[in-house]
Amino acid sequence: MFQTFDAPTNPADGPPRLKALRARLAAEGLTGFLVPRADRHQGEYVAHCDERLAWLTGFSGSAGFAAVLPDIAGVFIDGRYRVQVKAQVDTAHFTPVPWPETRLADWLIAQAPAGARIGFDPWLHSVKEVAGLEKALTAKGLALVPVEANPVDAIWDDRPAEPSEPILPHPLQFAGESSADKRARLGADLAKAKVGAAVLTLPDSVCWLLNIRGSDIARNPIARVNAVLEASGKVDLFCDPAQAEGLELWPDVAVLPRESFAAALAELGGRVQIDPESAPEAVAAILRGKAEVVEGPDPCLLPKAKKNTAELDGMRAAHLRDAVAMVKFLAWLDDEAENGGLTEISVVERLEGFRREANELREISFDTISGAGPNGAIVHYRVTHETNRPVKPGELLLVDSGGQYLDGTTDITRTVTVGPPPEGAAEAFTRVLQGMIAVSRLVWPRGRAGRDLEAVARYPLWVVGKDFDHGTGHGVGAYLSVHEGPQRLSRVSEVPLEPGMILSNEPGYYREGEWGIRIENLVAVEEAPPMPDGDGRDMLAFQTLTYVPIDRHLIEVEMLSRAEREWIDGYHRSVWALISDRVSGEVKDWLRQACAAL
Amino acid sequence: MFQTFDAPTNPADGPPRLKALRARLAAEGLTGFLVPRADRHQGEYVAHCDERLAWLTGFSGSAGFAAVLPDIAGVFIDGRYRVQVKAQVDTAHFTPVPWPETRLADWLIAQAPAGARIGFDPWLHSVKEVAGLEKALTAKGLALVPVEANPVDAIWDDRPAEPSEPILPHPLQFAGESSADKRARLGADLAKAKVGAAVLTLPDSVCWLLNIRGSDIARNPIARVNAVLEASGKVDLFCDPAQAEGLELWPDVAVLPRESFAAALAELGGRVQIDPESAPEAVAAILRGKAEVVEGPDPCLLPKAKKNTAELDGMRAAHLRDAVAMVKFLAWLDDEAENGGLTEISVVERLEGFRREANELREISFDTISGAGPNGAIVHYRVTHETNRPVKPGELLLVDSGGQYLDGTTDITRTVTVGPPPEGAAEAFTRVLQGMIAVSRLVWPRGRAGRDLEAVARYPLWVVGKDFDHGTGHGVGAYLSVHEGPQRLSRVSEVPLEPGMILSNEPGYYREGEWGIRIENLVAVEEAPPMPDGDGRDMLAFQTLTYVPIDRHLIEVEMLSRAEREWIDGYHRSVWALISDRVSGEVKDWLRQACAAL
Repeated sequence: MFQTFDAPTNPADGPPRLKALRARLAAEGLTGFLVPRADRHQGEYVAHCDERLAWLTGFSGSAGFAAVLPDIAGVFIDGRYRVQVKAQVDTAHFTPVPWPETRLADWLIAQAPAGARIGFDPWLHSVKEVAGLEKALTAKGLALVPVEANPVDAIWDDRPAEPSEPILPHPLQFAGESSADKRARLGADLAKAKVGAAVLTLPDSVCWLLNIRGSDIARNPIARVNAVLEASGKVDLFCDPAQAEGLELWPDVAVLPRESFAAALAELGGRVQIDPESAPEAVAAILRGKAEVVEGPDPCLLPKAKKNTAELDGMRAAHLRDAVAMVKFLAWLDDEAENGGLTEISVVERLEGFRREANELREISFDTISGAGPNGAIVHYRVTHETNRPVKPGELLLVDSGGQYLDGTTDITRTVTVGPPPEGAAEAFTRVLQGMIAVSRLVWPRGRAGRDLEAVARYPLWVVGKDFDHGTGHGVGAYLSVHEGPQRLSRVSEVPLEPGMILSNEPGYYREGEWGIRIENLVAVEEAPPMPDGDGRDMLAFQTLTYVPIDRHLIEVEMLSRAEREWIDGYHRSVWALISDRVSGEVKDWLRQACAAL
Repeated sequence: MFQTFDAPTNPADGPPRLKALRARLAAEGLTGFLVPRADRHQGEYVAHCDERLAWLTGFSGSAGFAAVLPDIAGVFIDGRYRVQVKAQVDTAHFTPVPWPETRLADWLIAQAPAGARIGFDPWLHSVKEVAGLEKALTAKGLALVPVEANPVDAIWDDRPAEPSEPILPHPLQFAGESSADKRARLGADLAKAKVGAAVLTLPDSVCWLLNIRGSDIARNPIARVNAVLEASGKVDLFCDPAQAEGLELWPDVAVLPRESFAAALAELGGRVQIDPESAPEAVAAILRGKAEVVEGPDPCLLPKAKKNTAELDGMRAAHLRDAVAMVKFLAWLDDEAENGGLTEISVVERLEGFRREANELREISFDTISGAGPNGAIVHYRVTHETNRPVKPGELLLVDSGGQYLDGTTDITRTVTVGPPPEGAAEAFTRVLQGMIAVSRLVWPRGRAGRDLEAVARYPLWVVGKDFDHGTGHGVGAYLSVHEGPQRLSRVSEVPLEPGMILSNEPGYYREGEWGIRIENLVAVEEAPPMPDGDGRDMLAFQTLTYVPIDRHLIEVEMLSRAEREWIDGYHRSVWALISDRVSGEVKDWLRQACAAL
């Protein structure tokens, strides 16, 4: 079992740790200190040794940070975590701050004493973040001071060791392009831009580039490493050498100790590229003065996002395998739920069990969200023994889950009604479905970004005054992170979509305190097939990867247009065609009725 | 009659003028010279004295420019004018260049001799344009040289005089806010930004700010003036003093001679704001060194775009008046067209006649586009005696037109079929209509820009591989320019839409050589009415301003969703309710059947 259900932290632990930290800061001559959730790699998940924010404050969400001052300690959390933070931190000692509504700089300026010295660990904040903060603080007479050693680590007695799991080769069969070819291609681009080397601090970039995988971080099949890519295609890989033991790399890839990374950066000269969005400020600080720092996006980002044929084939295979688990799960749920006795946790456990049955599950791709009734309205809900809720007739159940397989990463949400749906749910579900269908059917002229397209997913909700407070879709990696950039279906995404990019298509609707609805498939961008009535324009389209029935009990058929109804019937025909031979007996019977025409 | 149908230029005039210009340039020590369509005010329409591009090359489109070198003269035109340019210029002497596909700088670098000195008139190019061009040219060793006097004007013997039409006050009843209040409000904003003065070079900005109108430029009720707005609210207005004779302004608005503008700029000190998108480079050049130049959007742009209650009331009244003319016109057309004998020109003349009948038409708001059959596919078609085409049964007729009234500006497109529609036209018309309905029904959370919304207008075309090559909508002024910014329904518009903004909603579809379809209403942004099933979010919606029937013979009813069909029936009920009492007899009979439920 990958997922656990214990409360990850205890609010009572926070105050004494906060006291100890303040004493340490005073001894070091600092007025305050910033404690981000981020690690040195700015990823969404971090290793246990990097859970500084949770250890200090109790808050265990996937985004946020604390700012500790002598008389106040702010815990900055976004809209997803307003409720959770109150349950996890001792609010007599920690003050939740709504973020990004309140900017950190403004809060510090308002709260810190004049002339305050605010410490930060330059390995845990990006170049861009520090530049913005420093500008705002120095204008008001506050100093932003990088520390040599992190004072949280200094007082964290039982801090877990850094992970050092074995690094494994990722077979060419799944990667689709050799590391040598990738390095030659990216190196040539650097040479063209007259850049000598690029510093890579995103582990999934390095793993993609070297066709390696690891298990240092939960839910992500990555090794927690850094690298320097030279224009020649040569790579220096910084990790624990024990991780790479027995790993056959290439003559032009050197394995160097993790601890030598900073010293190696100090040796670089010429034009060196870093990504200001993700590179730690410490990297830039070491390079400055020695090399000419060139800011630009991580050179792996776009090539990694544009999956090749082998990766797309692998993703399709992984999705069919995963769909079998989902179909077994939904059939089981349909059979069991109305009898009572199920809980959010038993749902998670059974689903993980079905995924394991194929014997190919490497990990789950994130902690399953299993939200019954009102818990379904908490967008990033993670069930614990304390919050666990029975699955009851007359309520909705929202299950958002995914698997990591050697050939691909999945992410799927289905919302089902247990017995008759609650008031208003079917109408809202149908509108969410209409948005999800609109994205699935989307065809557009090459060059448009997620921002230019996303409205079609929200339109059916907007016209009746409804909306949802998350993006419509995120990028997804191929046996890498389930959240990857730069592609997104979101109003903040201006990166044009390109063939091979994989995105989620997941509109939702949430009625706080009652129920939540989300329907999610993954889709791949492809060149639009020729259309007989078309203009012969260069157009792109989405190819659906996920084939799992959508709960027909929640569809108000008369609300659908003819095209929408044809889409859903066609989708269910495809589910049947692709999955029916992989299941049998009662599951197959269930699938047949779940896939019948509306 | 406002509109004329003569060919505006003669291709044979170009070559001798080009020869004379080259001689002049050689005498002045210049290798080349740039001849833009723009005047000193960067407007879409220019006065006759500013038609340098048309005079020199023959090309009379509303956008473009020429670059004259010793051995080649490029005429840069966008996609709308690829056909027109070939008819208007002598291509043995002028070379059409596709733009913006070919950048001016790249073309000059490729075509000009080494060390070339390229002259330009700094009054006719914006600050932003010159900065970009200069950077690109100097990197390649070419010099961009501002001239004191425009060499085209020097050889243009019979150049028309500068227009000096009377400036008239725009009544408060229509303006809705006194000039004193506008100036105090904008002045306070400047003071807040620690800016002493803003230079205003957009005539419609000045006219809005001072509640004045004029008739210096065809189709635009503006005076061709500049102004300086001080943070105190004081304004210096630069025009021909004869224009302002008898005009009662305010004590803190000074009328100064047009010729003193440059000298007055040279007197400014402190922080002076200009809009780099529209201010002439000459303005910035005068200010530099004397004042601190602050770049920012013209301070009138956004306030002017957000119409107040009086302006919205005026726009509604103007649209109902204009709708009566359109309904009479469509009834006439329906009666006459099938008999034969009509032409594109007779259609334009009759429509202008109907608009004049109310005795309130000040101007047409642009040259009517009357495109029969294949001419309908030319997006910016303007009929001349040479191109005039009969209106024939079995063909579509596209009519895009508008009026300038004291209380508002209109812009409407209707496409009708004369007899049975040609093959494919009804299906395409219905898709265009679906896009137009999607925009009309749009409701969205405050904060979204045109870019975030436009996809809904194109979706019904995209899904069958079709699209149209123009924006979905442009901003519209209130008895000002029919094209105004910053609001647009376009992939290039990132300005959030705000209540009071008026936009066109005009998707289209064009089958080259056969027919063109466009359906256009104007809409105003308003706060969305409360919706019973909504979340109580802060949402905006469009209120339709245009009430004129849409040709039911072109609608394939079975393609429409229930909501779309309800929209069109509801729209026609509104047309009947608002217009039927204003027409009588056969026109009323025609309107009744045109507004019947589908």
